[in-house]
Amino acid sequence: MIEVFSTPPTDRYFEDYTPGATYVLGTFTMTEEDIVAFASAYDPQAMHTDRRVAAQGPFGSVIASGWHTVALTMRLLVDAFLPFDGLAAPGVDELRWSRPVRPGDTLTVRATVQAMRRSRSKPDRGLIHTLVEVIDRNGEVAMTMKPMNLIRVRHPEV
Amino acid sequence: MIEVFSTPPTDRYFEDYTPGATYVLGTFTMTEEDIVAFASAYDPQAMHTDRRVAAQGPFGSVIASGWHTVALTMRLLVDAFLPFDGLAAPGVDELRWSRPVRPGDTLTVRATVQAMRRSRSKPDRGLIHTLVEVIDRNGEVAMTMKPMNLIRVRHPEV
Repeated sequence: MIEVFSTPPTDRYFEDYTPGATYVLGTFTMTEEDIVAFASAYDPQAMHTDRRVAAQGPFGSVIASGWHTVALTMRLLVDAFLPFDGLAAPGVDELRWSRPVRPGDTLTVRATVQAMRRSRSKPDRGLIHTLVEVIDRNGEVAMTMKPMNLIRVRHPEV
Repeated sequence: MIEVFSTPPTDRYFEDYTPGATYVLGTFTMTEEDIVAFASAYDPQAMHTDRRVAAQGPFGSVIASGWHTVALTMRLLVDAFLPFDGLAAPGVDELRWSRPVRPGDTLTVRATVQAMRRSRSKPDRGLIHTLVEVIDRNGEVAMTMKPMNLIRVRHPEV
């Protein structure tokens, strides 16, 4: 079930998420220049930063740092899924990089709400567990992760 | 048990890791400028990017995107833990942001090898499960994660 939010991020609350619904958040494309720049700062392994070495490796080109794919996925979660005025997130489970991401790859991000519960100790918020999938042009899953997000409740008194 | 590697990253293999050992990888410090710049690109939530809004929020200042803390932690894993000529990693479990990271915070990263096993299908490599802890100046844990890493075996024939 593909869902679309009925409220903008500036007016989005716990009540606006639907358990079981899948939201399509958008796409991003990795360039070789971006891949090398991100990895040079944060993940300078030769498979991500050294075009010459990587060309002779198992993938035939540089591949993106998995954390770069996460960072661009997070950008779409902020732009198209989370409320504008967010709360700090407690964590992420089961992050998996199942396929390499190469320069020029265009990836689509979708988010499926797997579980929702109101906080017992803080009635103004609830916890949402989401399956985030990053899909390549062939429909193959390149990355998945399961973030938890604390989301404000619109009507805490209910 | 604090351990030190006996081999440099350019000559480091599966056999050089010790199950149960803890390696201290180094430290990093977050500046407000870096926090805002990283988050503006990848995680533009007001608590990370808007000094004025964040000053009035629950933390009293901007706090680092959790992914920024991960990225700088990854840098230390590459510089001081993983072999130089690494293999692609399958994933990470149980990423947790337990405390906010603020401008000026200096964080220490340590890595404890929790489990190691040789690959059955590919005898040239093994899988290492590591607990990575990011500790603040007061000795409190600000972040933890459990990466899995594929590491080449020095003597595949053994």
